[in-house]
Amino acid sequence: MTALPTLAVVGATGAVGTVMCELLTGRRNVWGEIRLIASERSVGRRVRCRGEELVVQALTPEAFDGVDVAMFDVPDEVSAEWAPIAVTRGAIAVDNSGAFRMDRDVPLVVPEINPEQVRNRPRGIIANANCTTLAMIVAVAPLHREYGLRELVLASYQAVSGAGQSGVDILHDQLTKVAGDRTLGSRTGDVRQAVGDDLGPFPAPLALNVVPWAGSPADSGWSSEEMKIRNESRKILGLPDLKVSATCVRVPVVTAHSVAVHAVFATEVDAEGAREALRNAPGVILVDDPAAGEFPMPIDAVGTDPSWVGRIRRALDDPRALDFFVTGDNLRKGAALNTAQIAELLAKELRTP
Amino acid sequence: MTALPTLAVVGATGAVGTVMCELLTGRRNVWGEIRLIASERSVGRRVRCRGEELVVQALTPEAFDGVDVAMFDVPDEVSAEWAPIAVTRGAIAVDNSGAFRMDRDVPLVVPEINPEQVRNRPRGIIANANCTTLAMIVAVAPLHREYGLRELVLASYQAVSGAGQSGVDILHDQLTKVAGDRTLGSRTGDVRQAVGDDLGPFPAPLALNVVPWAGSPADSGWSSEEMKIRNESRKILGLPDLKVSATCVRVPVVTAHSVAVHAVFATEVDAEGAREALRNAPGVILVDDPAAGEFPMPIDAVGTDPSWVGRIRRALDDPRALDFFVTGDNLRKGAALNTAQIAELLAKELRTP
Repeated sequence: MTALPTLAVVGATGAVGTVMCELLTGRRNVWGEIRLIASERSVGRRVRCRGEELVVQALTPEAFDGVDVAMFDVPDEVSAEWAPIAVTRGAIAVDNSGAFRMDRDVPLVVPEINPEQVRNRPRGIIANANCTTLAMIVAVAPLHREYGLRELVLASYQAVSGAGQSGVDILHDQLTKVAGDRTLGSRTGDVRQAVGDDLGPFPAPLALNVVPWAGSPADSGWSSEEMKIRNESRKILGLPDLKVSATCVRVPVVTAHSVAVHAVFATEVDAEGAREALRNAPGVILVDDPAAGEFPMPIDAVGTDPSWVGRIRRALDDPRALDFFVTGDNLRKGAALNTAQIAELLAKELRTP
Repeated sequence: MTALPTLAVVGATGAVGTVMCELLTGRRNVWGEIRLIASERSVGRRVRCRGEELVVQALTPEAFDGVDVAMFDVPDEVSAEWAPIAVTRGAIAVDNSGAFRMDRDVPLVVPEINPEQVRNRPRGIIANANCTTLAMIVAVAPLHREYGLRELVLASYQAVSGAGQSGVDILHDQLTKVAGDRTLGSRTGDVRQAVGDDLGPFPAPLALNVVPWAGSPADSGWSSEEMKIRNESRKILGLPDLKVSATCVRVPVVTAHSVAVHAVFATEVDAEGAREALRNAPGVILVDDPAAGEFPMPIDAVGTDPSWVGRIRRALDDPRALDFFVTGDNLRKGAALNTAQIAELLAKELRTP
């Protein structure tokens, strides 16, 4: 193929799709035609993408004709149905949903970690990891290469945009309701009363609160989100027996997930060695000078590509363990950026004779 | 002694002191005279406490004459100077600062866990633990009794009132500045710009953010707050070799600290056994039905006495480990309530011939 390949973006008008158009605008000479596809209610909408005004098309089998790579940023059940249809029409599907991540015949690719896996795609589908896994794993992988990872104990601080645009909208609504009343947050239930019954996609108010639950109930009290982080970390790192305990917590942050990480390794670690490994790692930015006010935070990491890592210290009671804090934009590296990076690996492959 | 003992509250007009007056109002027939003491700028102020209007007195050595128990809710350096003075005047000091907690001759008392330690006070001083330690340890202790604790990996979600009233004020100020602008939180630095340079007692904005830092720099990248949790947990539980790794993070919550806990024990655990132990434990309320939206959260725990515990599950990869989430009011059990409980143990002792 000498012409630039054709890209389809399915779910182009959602929270992730919007960031995707932004990213594509900054990445010229990768794609020929870009086709935006979305659900019925967005069809006909005009969206600016890569300097062009594109008209959103309907999701039909024919929409994939002539498409080389189709990105999916849609709910699990839509991906489960439509990614295979895109494949039968000749496209390679890069899916950001949870539908295929744990499928043995679908690779789970993080380009900084396992780019070679893109070629191993018997179903013609490549999966993108969960946003919380992605923010964290980019920083964990270089340390694994250095010291040999054995165990992860994780606690997350997840942004509302992980639940889509409706999550962002409800947090802004709630902030408007609680701002200005300086008595709020000091009596049981006062915030619930101020916020009212509309909780959007969340089981409790997010304003002036943290909610220790994300996803749906899985086995034995674990949430689906916590299981995803465990299963996906194992698959991406190729460590099927990795011990993982995650607690997923939603916080009143718009965008950028953070994770407090306690990582246990096979060998002794040292904080300066870990910093050195992270300084040289792709997709990572080191911000680790607490005395100067430098540590990873959502308000800085949002809108940027890398995972921000800091607060690196060796456990005081275990010379094989490191504690650190990671923050990454869940809509960029956690979703659109990683998908775009996978698609670019495919574009390169398609152009190589 | 047949008359009721005299109580002094030093720091009566601060965030914790205010809650203390509220608590004393609900606890009649414990104290005879209550004497409120505060810094210069509050002297002469009238404060309602236990139905009486009390006039705030100056902090002088004479203020402690005739006092049986003196509670201190003041900065470390004020406690360090004045608690011993109160003792020389005949009072027993119950101190909520960090000044004496790790002193070998000062017991660190949590009445649900080690009440017998109040009698072991060679310096006449009894210390109250840090607010984050307290919220968590009340739930950990019954599990330690059941299974034998070996290790804690903790990540905190700490409220702004842990930094005093100025922390509460700055969060409300910042919320007013960010509310209504629905674009905020989506570009790097946009929240910093909206909030401005006044950050109150914090190193970064709290609105729409989480800040992985609390306290001052301690050894090797650890914060003083993280060291306190480790040292105090060991002292309270009487486990000098307990392995503890804590990451302390400030979140935009007014009051009530939360902690994600990964606890490793000497023996195998089971989630239902842990729930049973917690159901019967003093100072704990079990809220553990995620499918029904029941888990511990600041907006519910604030203004209440117990530590709220939930999300209890056995680690999937370690039959000796439990993961759970705890939330407790940092001004009540985390400060004023625990101090009041210690003082009441002393009042009982003073009244027993």
